[in-house]
Amino acid sequence: MMRAGPSQEEIRKHNLGTLLRHVHLAGPTSRAELTNLMGLNRSTIMALTADLTAAGLVREELPRDTGRAGRPSLVVLPESARVHVLAFDVGVDRLVAARVGLGGVILDRRQMVRPRHGFEMEEVVAALAGFARQMRRRIGPDSVCVGAAAAICGAVGRTDGVVRFAPNIGFEDAPFGEELTKRLEIGLDVAVGNDGNLGALAEQSRGVGVGCRDLIYLHGDVGIGGGIMANGRLLGGLGGYGGEVGHMIINPGGRLCACGSRGCLEAEVGERALMEHAGRYGQAIGGEAVRVVVDAADRGDVGAQDALHRVGDWLGLGVANLVKIFNPEMVIFGGVLRELYLGAAAQIRTQINTTTLTASRERLRLRTSALGDDATLVGAAELAFAQVLADPLEALARVAPA
Amino acid sequence: MMRAGPSQEEIRKHNLGTLLRHVHLAGPTSRAELTNLMGLNRSTIMALTADLTAAGLVREELPRDTGRAGRPSLVVLPESARVHVLAFDVGVDRLVAARVGLGGVILDRRQMVRPRHGFEMEEVVAALAGFARQMRRRIGPDSVCVGAAAAICGAVGRTDGVVRFAPNIGFEDAPFGEELTKRLEIGLDVAVGNDGNLGALAEQSRGVGVGCRDLIYLHGDVGIGGGIMANGRLLGGLGGYGGEVGHMIINPGGRLCACGSRGCLEAEVGERALMEHAGRYGQAIGGEAVRVVVDAADRGDVGAQDALHRVGDWLGLGVANLVKIFNPEMVIFGGVLRELYLGAAAQIRTQINTTTLTASRERLRLRTSALGDDATLVGAAELAFAQVLADPLEALARVAPA
Repeated sequence: MMRAGPSQEEIRKHNLGTLLRHVHLAGPTSRAELTNLMGLNRSTIMALTADLTAAGLVREELPRDTGRAGRPSLVVLPESARVHVLAFDVGVDRLVAARVGLGGVILDRRQMVRPRHGFEMEEVVAALAGFARQMRRRIGPDSVCVGAAAAICGAVGRTDGVVRFAPNIGFEDAPFGEELTKRLEIGLDVAVGNDGNLGALAEQSRGVGVGCRDLIYLHGDVGIGGGIMANGRLLGGLGGYGGEVGHMIINPGGRLCACGSRGCLEAEVGERALMEHAGRYGQAIGGEAVRVVVDAADRGDVGAQDALHRVGDWLGLGVANLVKIFNPEMVIFGGVLRELYLGAAAQIRTQINTTTLTASRERLRLRTSALGDDATLVGAAELAFAQVLADPLEALARVAPA
Repeated sequence: MMRAGPSQEEIRKHNLGTLLRHVHLAGPTSRAELTNLMGLNRSTIMALTADLTAAGLVREELPRDTGRAGRPSLVVLPESARVHVLAFDVGVDRLVAARVGLGGVILDRRQMVRPRHGFEMEEVVAALAGFARQMRRRIGPDSVCVGAAAAICGAVGRTDGVVRFAPNIGFEDAPFGEELTKRLEIGLDVAVGNDGNLGALAEQSRGVGVGCRDLIYLHGDVGIGGGIMANGRLLGGLGGYGGEVGHMIINPGGRLCACGSRGCLEAEVGERALMEHAGRYGQAIGGEAVRVVVDAADRGDVGAQDALHRVGDWLGLGVANLVKIFNPEMVIFGGVLRELYLGAAAQIRTQINTTTLTASRERLRLRTSALGDDATLVGAAELAFAQVLADPLEALARVAPA
């Protein structure tokens, strides 16, 4: 608050980052559009573009036939094949690694099933590092990796990469970021973020939440993670542990949660609650578990219908609480909550409508994730791109081959 | 996000506002300190100070004996007696109006008891406008009013001054801001904010939360209002209705709330719950009600002790949920929750410690409001000063006598 306005150098850095972020998120953009969007004159846009081009971050091309007369404005596009990041996603049931190019294109991708039992941090790190090695063998000589980040289903410190608590995969105070950084051996620190937080970032950057400043993303895996955007920014709190909505207690004395409490949202709505209510515990896991119940309910199975309604009521109550606390523009159901939402939308809407003030919900939109199973992976990629977007030339100077 | 960096004119405005905000919040400050704090050179600070002095917003004085050798740096201080705002506070049991000078000094103040029954919006507006008239009769000829704002115990739109829902005082969709603006007749719009939100703003500006970017302020009146600062900014949500933590349902099927739901935090923790549990409903109201129960508990009254523990358990559960969602640095108990917190701190701490992850609470501080009964009024004053602090010269040009 107390600092004075920015210097000329800070403004230039900001403008370079803003331009690069635009082509990264929106794709090829003409100089004329950039001039309008950024409120700068043509010569400044040209100079910024020249700097980014010289750094190899963007290139300029003549657009395809625009159908208009006159000389067309050059189009600026990201150097997606050359400039990339490594993104990782650690879910309960799967591990994913991807090489993602500037602009958000997935250039390469590896995935494996993660066994639910006996798969320790060392094994997760080794598997992800192995994927990264495989992918790096296939990159061209002038390719440059500008960042690396991982999404994980647990509570993670803002900057230290330590997974403090992830009961569904058995991590506790695990130095995951540090270990993965060591094993990757690419000279870049791996940033680590909570899956719910990174899902929120992804949906706001490239998904159904583009343009929303206030949104809540709920990520269903075995448990429920949350990511909250308030005033356009991810809500991290003091240590970065904000957004743990899965452990909001909504039913005191209710079902036992993996965290040790009773009646947490995740205990009442998670995979185990649904499967037990449906009398199908052990029949399926993950997204398949929800689909089994939704399909059975569709076929008229009363037990499955009842299970969906019970779980939907609790999910609705939890969402209603969040709507009162945040007055969000959008609530996004991601991961396995996509299927659950589709199977129990009536219960969820009813709970919201009967327990929240009209003012809190009058322009609320409920949506399923647009990025699907990749939301958390895409969020990890966006986290990995954060440095190069904040200060393009400095970030690139740090990683480019001398 | 897409805009380019600020222009020179925007930077100057920002710097003027930053300097003024500093002397407004921190009081008299030497030029030398301002130079350090703002990271600008001495001549720029001198020019900014000269502009603000010419506008009559600050003045410069020689400091009292500093005990150091050499020529002392001039001290910049706010023109508190001249530049002021009108601040109002509408609680369930009282109405307050104050004239608050730049720098936060209360120059004049009026207060009355608000009867709990049959006191409509028109009567509230008339009472506040009457206070304002009385206070304005006593101001000097060169005095200038730069803003007006009111805190109220209800859900308020971000910009329209409409109180959408305030069941404890019987307002619903009430155009309170517009009506008060009309009745004041001072040519200034009255901004209106929720009491919890403005209490949070006040505690962060001048209270126990100074320096906290992530804090939760809970305001106990008959019900419970909340104000949340996330990333240093008030969490408003889409329409400004964010922060309604009093209606978070923590006990489904529990006590009936004024909002129509059951088991809201405010239904389980509010005045009526406490008094009924203690078998003392109707014996006292407001802050007195809590004091009666706390005093009885201190004297060994088992019913009063039990009531405090029950209410404290629910309050602790509600706070624990908020700690998980926000990972705040501080939770501040304001209004009648100050007394309640002091009487039930053990229950509250125990609930937090047993139901939240260590990571979410490891640096959490629980505090009572430093501004006491005036927190919401002080918050209203800060809201009223917002425009002049954002753009000092423009705001002053708009209100100053021609």
